[in-house]
Amino acid sequence: MISKNMLKELAAYRMQKRCDEDGVFVVEGVKMASEALKSGLPIRVICATSEWLASNADQIGSSTSCYEVSASELERLSAMHSPNHVWMLLQRKTVVAPHRSALTLALDRLQDPGNMGTIMRTADWYGIRHIVCSQDTVGCYNAKTVQATMGAVFRTQVEYVDLPQWLQHCHIPVYGASLHGKPLSEVSKPTHEAVLLIGNESRGISPEAMNAVTYPILIPNMGGTAESLNASVAAGILINHLLN
Amino acid sequence: MISKNMLKELAAYRMQKRCDEDGVFVVEGVKMASEALKSGLPIRVICATSEWLASNADQIGSSTSCYEVSASELERLSAMHSPNHVWMLLQRKTVVAPHRSALTLALDRLQDPGNMGTIMRTADWYGIRHIVCSQDTVGCYNAKTVQATMGAVFRTQVEYVDLPQWLQHCHIPVYGASLHGKPLSEVSKPTHEAVLLIGNESRGISPEAMNAVTYPILIPNMGGTAESLNASVAAGILINHLLN
Repeated sequence: MISKNMLKELAAYRMQKRCDEDGVFVVEGVKMASEALKSGLPIRVICATSEWLASNADQIGSSTSCYEVSASELERLSAMHSPNHVWMLLQRKTVVAPHRSALTLALDRLQDPGNMGTIMRTADWYGIRHIVCSQDTVGCYNAKTVQATMGAVFRTQVEYVDLPQWLQHCHIPVYGASLHGKPLSEVSKPTHEAVLLIGNESRGISPEAMNAVTYPILIPNMGGTAESLNASVAAGILINHLLN
Repeated sequence: MISKNMLKELAAYRMQKRCDEDGVFVVEGVKMASEALKSGLPIRVICATSEWLASNADQIGSSTSCYEVSASELERLSAMHSPNHVWMLLQRKTVVAPHRSALTLALDRLQDPGNMGTIMRTADWYGIRHIVCSQDTVGCYNAKTVQATMGAVFRTQVEYVDLPQWLQHCHIPVYGASLHGKPLSEVSKPTHEAVLLIGNESRGISPEAMNAVTYPILIPNMGGTAESLNASVAAGILINHLLN
């Protein structure tokens, strides 16, 4: 059971601002909840149906506040179209300077949370642990981002920095998509650590960040009419080309 | 000006079923509307703000019913969070047997309209004109699909067929993503026409369709923990690998 007051208090976390202030994020649905339980991140609150609670009781730590909720109470909390058994409030990770991997991703002013989450998921698939973002890139703990990561939010380190400055001081080659770049098929796989820079959905890479690009690259348009690729698709194609 | 009755009638097209029955689809926003005007497809109805109508008057055919609407009327019609000046109702294309291009895409039971639209956008970028889908694949005229195509809906031919049967009779090599496939880096570019088969977001390619796959291929998981890639990202990586 959950009190009306507590439900109201937790429903406030549908607002991104409230999550930011408290350094928490929301995870929803059976699949993501199972990833959250495995992640070892501190779970502050769980609101779930009695079935979910019964079958996961042994995995819930003693410091987690647990509430059994009805379908309509879950709907009140949820930002999803069809809430799926469980809603959780987790504490955000502290970003630790990660071990560098072959490729570090840098995101410049990315705006769409679906793209952000999908790029984190792709990074996770390719073993990229470190993602560096400009301060105005969409949040990695935005509710839509989190859902699109399919669990990668628990395994990647996302840092928000002064990106042009970070790029100037990273001292490794920076690959960046540019209309004046070299066609991908002519670009060989980097032999050492490198950075791949992805720009904004409609405006691309900012001039300040572009200054730090050592290898401008291009995915050739073979159709003639399409204006662009989706940012997360372009990121996937570039990551695969540089790592695979 | 638009009458209350007409507004109510047009608002019914927010229901996918209503669009299917009438063989029409909805296009929203300045960017997509400009693609629609260029496409030459018959536009049945335009509802737009006075500014949009004034600056596009010379491009609107005489057989199109035009209504000036207020911001709140536009909101009533729109499925978007922030409606953007214009809402259109277009007649669907007749699928003509297209010229075969180097690669034909086949989609097996794809469910997410965002993925569907993004894959159509990627196909358009790579000059793929023909997409063949299983009957239970999400609609190419679904409102969310259309928005995600960023205009590719006007330039690709999407056919819904008995997919296993179509694949058995296409008489060209079929590449399909499979957990038991050959790693992508060992797969060379096809020398002749080929089909690339993409499966459902969580269940992959159905056994019936998999029977027709001549080249099972695999995007290796280099991270170890992630379970899968987003379907439209995987499609992008595979298309790029086979064509570029």
